[in-house]
Amino acid sequence: MERKGILLVVSGFSGAGKGTLMKSLVKAYDNYALSISMTTRTPREGEEEGKAYFFVEEKEFLEKIKEEKVIEYAKYCGNYYGTPKEYVENMLHQGKDVILEIEIQGALKVKKQYPDALLLFVMPPSASELERRLTGRGTETKEVIHQRMLRAVEEAEGIEAYDYILINDQLEDCVKELHNLVMAAHNTPERNQEFINNIRKELKSLSKGE
Amino acid sequence: MERKGILLVVSGFSGAGKGTLMKSLVKAYDNYALSISMTTRTPREGEEEGKAYFFVEEKEFLEKIKEEKVIEYAKYCGNYYGTPKEYVENMLHQGKDVILEIEIQGALKVKKQYPDALLLFVMPPSASELERRLTGRGTETKEVIHQRMLRAVEEAEGIEAYDYILINDQLEDCVKELHNLVMAAHNTPERNQEFINNIRKELKSLSKGE
Repeated sequence: MERKGILLVVSGFSGAGKGTLMKSLVKAYDNYALSISMTTRTPREGEEEGKAYFFVEEKEFLEKIKEEKVIEYAKYCGNYYGTPKEYVENMLHQGKDVILEIEIQGALKVKKQYPDALLLFVMPPSASELERRLTGRGTETKEVIHQRMLRAVEEAEGIEAYDYILINDQLEDCVKELHNLVMAAHNTPERNQEFINNIRKELKSLSKGE
Repeated sequence: MERKGILLVVSGFSGAGKGTLMKSLVKAYDNYALSISMTTRTPREGEEEGKAYFFVEEKEFLEKIKEEKVIEYAKYCGNYYGTPKEYVENMLHQGKDVILEIEIQGALKVKKQYPDALLLFVMPPSASELERRLTGRGTETKEVIHQRMLRAVEEAEGIEAYDYILINDQLEDCVKELHNLVMAAHNTPERNQEFINNIRKELKSLSKGE
């Protein structure tokens, strides 16, 4: 039986630890592929094409949007960032569970196009822990941290649109739990229609044969 | 935070190995409680009250139905069998994940009363494996096995009403997989509304405080 991959959309507060979580997940299990974004921004030194990003000219990006070859996109600081459909669908057909890390607006757009997608919201164990993590990075000003906290208030409003929440307390436990959520999703009847249809056919033929 | 138990409804073909699976699950993890049925049939030798069954008179059973103290019931060979609501709800409130092993009609009745219930359909890896298991028991006549296979054909029609299918191939793997499905279900936003509301409140107060 062919295994079709699950499109896993991961959102969560800045500081919830999504990045580390995703990297650890991909390292720990071989059924995952990280989606690679397409962008019009200039590659930074050392950034290879097709690793962190696919780098394209704005003209090409806009054409791809028109041709519906971009699942979702957004513009930040004058540059476009988006999810190329072809790469994601190739991976899904290869049976990979594809991970998309995006914000809620993007997540909802994906769900519309892929109703089968699994939406996951990563949270810290508490708001004070979130603040502690943001502060602990030591790279952000107080003002930036405050902005992030305000942004988290907004983002928290959308949690019910997600299929699952995931509390990122201990990284290792959290990676396992995340993997289990994806494995569970592979067990829904709609994701096993071929198997169900086959067993129905076989049951009918065996019970007639007797 | 209070952990509310999940009501887990397990159905599946006769011969799929539900009984062994449930027993192993309850043995392996301490978060489960098996629901105990109520029946009007006479206790067999060695059957203790409140272990395999709660034994009651028909008059009491019918009263309990009228008082809506029975979640679902059915009549076989002149005897009533049902699921007493009080026992199930007590266990759920204690935070236990309560397992109900019933057929599809009962499962759908439960889902109507407990929309939050998790419906699980246990299947063998193939129809021929099901036939092999039924034959292998050595206790059933060919005719009975044929009846079971015909019944399986009927039951298979309802699989899409379930949240998950579970393929029982290797018992030990299957027990783990089943446990993971229940653990995953504990991660839905609606089952964590209290936690979500708390973190929202805390985020708001922290971002105001700065």
